Amino acid sequence: MHSARPPAANGKAWRRWLPALPVLDWGRAYDRPTLGADLLAALIVTVMLIPQSLAYAQLAGLPPATGLYASIAPLLLYAVFGSSRVLAVGPVAVVSLMTAAAIGSITPPGAVGAAALAVTLAFLSGLMLLAMGLLRLGFIANFLSHPVISGFISASGLLIAASQLKTLLGVPASGHHLPALLHSLFGQLGQVHGLTLAVGAGSTAFLFWARIGLKPLLQRLGLGARGADIAAKAGPVAAIVATTLAAWALDWQAQGLKIVGHVPQGLPPFTLPVFDLALWQQLALPALLISVVGFVESVSVGQTLAARRRQRIEPDQELVALGAGNMGAAFSGGLPVTGGFARSVVNFDAGARTPAAGVYTAFGILLATLLLTPALYYLPQATLAATIVVAVLSLVDFGILRRTWAYSKPDFAALLTTLLATLALGVEAGLLAGVGVSLALYLWRTSRPHIATVGWVPGTEHFRNVQRHAVVTHPALLSLRVDESLYFANARTLEDVVNNAVAASPALRHVVLQCSAINDIDASALESLEAIERRLHEAGIALHLSEVKGPVMDRLQHTDFLRTLSGQVFLTHYQAVAALAPETLAPGAKRG
Amino acid sequence: MHSARPPAANGKAWRRWLPALPVLDWGRAYDRPTLGADLLAALIVTVMLIPQSLAYAQLAGLPPATGLYASIAPLLLYAVFGSSRVLAVGPVAVVSLMTAAAIGSITPPGAVGAAALAVTLAFLSGLMLLAMGLLRLGFIANFLSHPVISGFISASGLLIAASQLKTLLGVPASGHHLPALLHSLFGQLGQVHGLTLAVGAGSTAFLFWARIGLKPLLQRLGLGARGADIAAKAGPVAAIVATTLAAWALDWQAQGLKIVGHVPQGLPPFTLPVFDLALWQQLALPALLISVVGFVESVSVGQTLAARRRQRIEPDQELVALGAGNMGAAFSGGLPVTGGFARSVVNFDAGARTPAAGVYTAFGILLATLLLTPALYYLPQATLAATIVVAVLSLVDFGILRRTWAYSKPDFAALLTTLLATLALGVEAGLLAGVGVSLALYLWRTSRPHIATVGWVPGTEHFRNVQRHAVVTHPALLSLRVDESLYFANARTLEDVVNNAVAASPALRHVVLQCSAINDIDASALESLEAIERRLHEAGIALHLSEVKGPVMDRLQHTDFLRTLSGQVFLTHYQAVAALAPETLAPGAKRG
Repeated sequence: MHSARPPAANGKAWRRWLPALPVLDWGRAYDRPTLGADLLAALIVTVMLIPQSLAYAQLAGLPPATGLYASIAPLLLYAVFGSSRVLAVGPVAVVSLMTAAAIGSITPPGAVGAAALAVTLAFLSGLMLLAMGLLRLGFIANFLSHPVISGFISASGLLIAASQLKTLLGVPASGHHLPALLHSLFGQLGQVHGLTLAVGAGSTAFLFWARIGLKPLLQRLGLGARGADIAAKAGPVAAIVATTLAAWALDWQAQGLKIVGHVPQGLPPFTLPVFDLALWQQLALPALLISVVGFVESVSVGQTLAARRRQRIEPDQELVALGAGNMGAAFSGGLPVTGGFARSVVNFDAGARTPAAGVYTAFGILLATLLLTPALYYLPQATLAATIVVAVLSLVDFGILRRTWAYSKPDFAALLTTLLATLALGVEAGLLAGVGVSLALYLWRTSRPHIATVGWVPGTEHFRNVQRHAVVTHPALLSLRVDESLYFANARTLEDVVNNAVAASPALRHVVLQCSAINDIDASALESLEAIERRLHEAGIALHLSEVKGPVMDRLQHTDFLRTLSGQVFLTHYQAVAALAPETLAPGAKRG
Repeated sequence: MHSARPPAANGKAWRRWLPALPVLDWGRAYDRPTLGADLLAALIVTVMLIPQSLAYAQLAGLPPATGLYASIAPLLLYAVFGSSRVLAVGPVAVVSLMTAAAIGSITPPGAVGAAALAVTLAFLSGLMLLAMGLLRLGFIANFLSHPVISGFISASGLLIAASQLKTLLGVPASGHHLPALLHSLFGQLGQVHGLTLAVGAGSTAFLFWARIGLKPLLQRLGLGARGADIAAKAGPVAAIVATTLAAWALDWQAQGLKIVGHVPQGLPPFTLPVFDLALWQQLALPALLISVVGFVESVSVGQTLAARRRQRIEPDQELVALGAGNMGAAFSGGLPVTGGFARSVVNFDAGARTPAAGVYTAFGILLATLLLTPALYYLPQATLAATIVVAVLSLVDFGILRRTWAYSKPDFAALLTTLLATLALGVEAGLLAGVGVSLALYLWRTSRPHIATVGWVPGTEHFRNVQRHAVVTHPALLSLRVDESLYFANARTLEDVVNNAVAASPALRHVVLQCSAINDIDASALESLEAIERRLHEAGIALHLSEVKGPVMDRLQHTDFLRTLSGQVFLTHYQAVAALAPETLAPGAKRG
């Protein structure tokens, strides 16, 4: 039997409570070719990460420097604790949106600065991730179903794009869900700032073209496919350099264009989270949701990339590593971080072999923080908004709606609920609504079990649904297959089905429950079985069981139910029919 | 296939939305012998119901007359709509306790009178029951698992007994959970009223004796067994008559004994619920819980008694009937009602054949209200408290703790949580905690599925767990049986198990998932299967399925998963092994 739990660590029991240090594995075998590969990947990721860090800090409503700070210490810590070889952590779009919503929900606004709230949120998220990792609670993430994640990511992409419209249009607007954002925007449409719109729309158009047209162009100019692919990812850098130079040369600031302005030059600051229990209570739920969403996003990226190189990642170890990364962000003026999809793919494609690439990337960002920040003074905010919009629109996938509808209506309902609730109510309410709906639909489905009357498939030892197959049945014997574990929510349904079947079959002498799909029988269901047995007994009908699973049989053995059962327990359903109504299995028996 | 839904009503579709009128069935065949049997039963139930009605009104913190009123109109309405032949409705202990808690939770207390709150609660509960009945939502009650109900009923019995101690001791005390009640009582122990204690303790002792010793005594005096049984149930009437006469003759009221006092004489009043949306919002949750608990209690009594006469009751029809009964209580000065266990058993044992017995009982109570109420003036409240205490202690069943512990630890956890939370936090919080814990434990269990490696049982077509049976396996073929439906909460576990198994078996060429216990595969699980297939394919291993259920196969047929599957789908696992590794099934194959 394969247990659902991770295999116990070898060695002493207390060791399982200590986080592993994957760095000890790959660090020992580090050689010069690996160094070269990692350095090249780090250079490319650094160039990509600088604009992303600035942009996602802006998305979170934080000073641009916090984005750079969040791309230094977390990368170093992830390199020590992380089990993925190529995951690149830092501020990512969805988590930054959730950070903005959490900061925006604190009342009174501005009582504590937004940056202080961000490091407190990173601290709480780090604590939760570490606790989940050390307590092996990674399975919590499994309760975010795929449709809920899909709906949430698509809605987040739309919300993020909508939130950046104000910056692209040069109007003030605010709100953490679509109705508020759109209402706020429509009220301001008269005050659109022409120059801002030109820079924003121009950058957006260029970045879209860079995604689609730049790679073929570079290839025609003689670059190799892989080189062209990576160079095309540097499109945002080109947009930033061009618009920053133009803003400086043409003095666009004087014409009302909003620029990034002063970005402090130097090492990341040492910061402390705000220690205030009331504030922690307000931030606890957002921090939990940020932790779980960040973990799910990160692990799915990590697993996808690990599989390509036949490596494995350890989800519980990832929790520890992401927890450490967020702690790093909390104490160095950052914001909540997680593993990002685009940057990890670039890191992978650029040839990164070990997490050391992350260490070199962190040093690259540190150098930028020390040297480059004065050059960012004239960077237009509209350019950053354009990079965000172009990056997140790839998150939006409406095709999943159609595919999910075709496969499963309950999954579609969960997806649509998450999507609409996230758009209409914001990220936290949307996510909770999605989880609630998917759990409720699961319970609803299991509470109405499929119960099939089965008959013998001639020439085999198998029994199949009488409504789907040409099978043989016998009037004195009713074979029922229950296609669900029996538990409190569905136990009474079985009683009803048996009662109705008995009332409809006057010749009935035996009822055999084929238990091959019954994985558990809880105390409520045991009561129902006892009630069924009592009623059948009074009607002169014997109740039998067949194909009872080992664990279920172990449980039943301790009960009065088996001791007082009027019928027998058969190893196979075939044996049951052979013993109770052998004429059913005679050659040439009539097919039902 | 038996559907979990009730069979569609014959006739026009709109008819299914109309409540049925069982009175039309039994009313047509009503004859003189039935009349005689029903009249006798009604007489006996009336004698039993008068003290119970007064006592449960006192328990709910309401004037005694409301209990009598609640035993008139609801009985008439239940007789028209109810599907049980012998259920006796009226105020019952647990529902009265919940009514007291709901009324006590309204702030500011006393802004609306308690009696007005009680009729409003009955009105809301009636509305909800009617709606649940007409929308066929009776399955909601299935989410109250047996352990939760057991724990709740036992805790309610203790809470009720504790709440009556103050009346038995003659001290003021209050509270809706055990800590508050006991704290309040212990603070007053110095002021115990001697005469009240004497009457209360004497009545309690007498009633206990009447339960145990009266029936044998009456039989020795020459009464038949059935007659003695029924006469013994009249113990409370004897206690009431005796203590009322004593209180009148000895003027106990002047010595500080609390008596029932003035009970208005005459027809039940016409009352209206309070129409106040804010109040309705406060009462909505209590009304829902009262409705569900009352329904579960009533249906379990009704089913038990119906089975004894091979009759059936219709749960959805019972919802309508109980809803009508509560509406009747709301408009005639009553309190929430449901079917009571003790009185229904008495009605059954006394020979009631149709719900007409309930009609005659209602007239009996009406006569008492018209004629008897002046005689109740001197009835000591302590006597009523004694009848309550003795009645409810039979609800307390600690043996269920031991039995549930032996059978299932999760069920025990749900039972204990409900029991302790109800005692410590009150009826509403206790019930909600129980439902929450039982659902969470169910989800927890299904999120860690049992996945067994299976092998061939020689000489059969069956496969069993390699760890439990002597079976045959093959190094190139891995047979996994998943003992749970695959859904979001457990899909990734299967990925882990397959990954680990593949890593441990270098000779592996085929993985066959035996799907006999998989009743559903949701969209998240489909993603996981696709991921498994991709990874196996890259490792040169084919993925096959066997024994896929019809409904699951229907779903998969629309997907890319089946089209791109590297392996095959086999009707039986035996066929899969015969096709992929036939040497496994050779005679004399090595047993694993």
